[in-house]
Amino acid sequence: MQLIPSSVERLIVELGRLPSVGPKTAERLAIFMLKNDSSRARLLGDAINELHTGISHCKQCYIFSETQLCDVCSSSNRDTHIIAVVEEPFDVIAIENTGHYNGLYHVLGGVISPLDGISADKLEIKSLIKRIHESNITEIILATNPSVEGESTGMYIRQQLGETDIRITRLARGLPVGGDLEYADQVTLKRAIDGREAF
Amino acid sequence: MQLIPSSVERLIVELGRLPSVGPKTAERLAIFMLKNDSSRARLLGDAINELHTGISHCKQCYIFSETQLCDVCSSSNRDTHIIAVVEEPFDVIAIENTGHYNGLYHVLGGVISPLDGISADKLEIKSLIKRIHESNITEIILATNPSVEGESTGMYIRQQLGETDIRITRLARGLPVGGDLEYADQVTLKRAIDGREAF
Repeated sequence: MQLIPSSVERLIVELGRLPSVGPKTAERLAIFMLKNDSSRARLLGDAINELHTGISHCKQCYIFSETQLCDVCSSSNRDTHIIAVVEEPFDVIAIENTGHYNGLYHVLGGVISPLDGISADKLEIKSLIKRIHESNITEIILATNPSVEGESTGMYIRQQLGETDIRITRLARGLPVGGDLEYADQVTLKRAIDGREAF
Repeated sequence: MQLIPSSVERLIVELGRLPSVGPKTAERLAIFMLKNDSSRARLLGDAINELHTGISHCKQCYIFSETQLCDVCSSSNRDTHIIAVVEEPFDVIAIENTGHYNGLYHVLGGVISPLDGISADKLEIKSLIKRIHESNITEIILATNPSVEGESTGMYIRQQLGETDIRITRLARGLPVGGDLEYADQVTLKRAIDGREAF
């Protein structure tokens, strides 16, 4: 007996693919959208469909940016001698929100993870090394997540830099190990910036 | 400094309007969709946009149905003398899943709730009364939710039926199976004592 319309069933399946959304939650969300006006649901649907369009990246640091150079890279108030290397654009936002860092960034676009088929050449590591060699950098903060993949990606970058006078640091282990940089609270993140260690 | 692209910000706002989705969850879901292929996100976006199209209701009981009469109303194996009156289409599915009821249904489309501006004439109550008078019904089960609104909607329907030979019942109130007597709320426990069954 077909009591759930196919359009609702399809939505429940798709919602169920989101992280931490189980079948019951998916059903509840679908019912909520169904009870609301179709115009309300359409606002969300369109927001999802247009999510990826119009997103481009800064040519220098690979943060989200609608211009060639992002606001950080083109600012004259930033310390251009320090680069914080992060995994994802949202990590930049987390660090910016502390108001405790005034250098530049470099977004890798992920971490080296052979199990997921992500090798070093799929990340912005080559462009990072080139950038470091071409500009007058005095410190690199390896601000990858305190996870196995984050650490080993940091190690890999350290290796690639070879013998160098540049100070290479990583965020202090004030961060809860196994956690996500993006979700760290501001105080913890400030401590981690202050206590960065030689790498 | 504009570090979150406007399309991502817009999605976070729209996701945040869903029930039990706070700002952090909305951000996490948006990042998840952003990291995935745009084609994956689009499957969800399209499912939401097409949710309301193609949904129609059974002309008799107002369950979702793609045909004029739903599978329940057009079945020859159902007891056509009993109608269970429910609030929403998904209540029908819950009752069907028990495999314990073989009568017909009538979906009200909500409950009387003056605070939300929902009066009796916005629900399928008139059509229910008409249906009862026109067919040979022996029992009406008022299967609205055991909430204040559900109860008063049931009372209203009872009033509208006036003097009648039809048996009017409601679902038993009592302890949920698998629940803990110790943690049952007082009203539920009072109802369970009042409605105690021979053992």
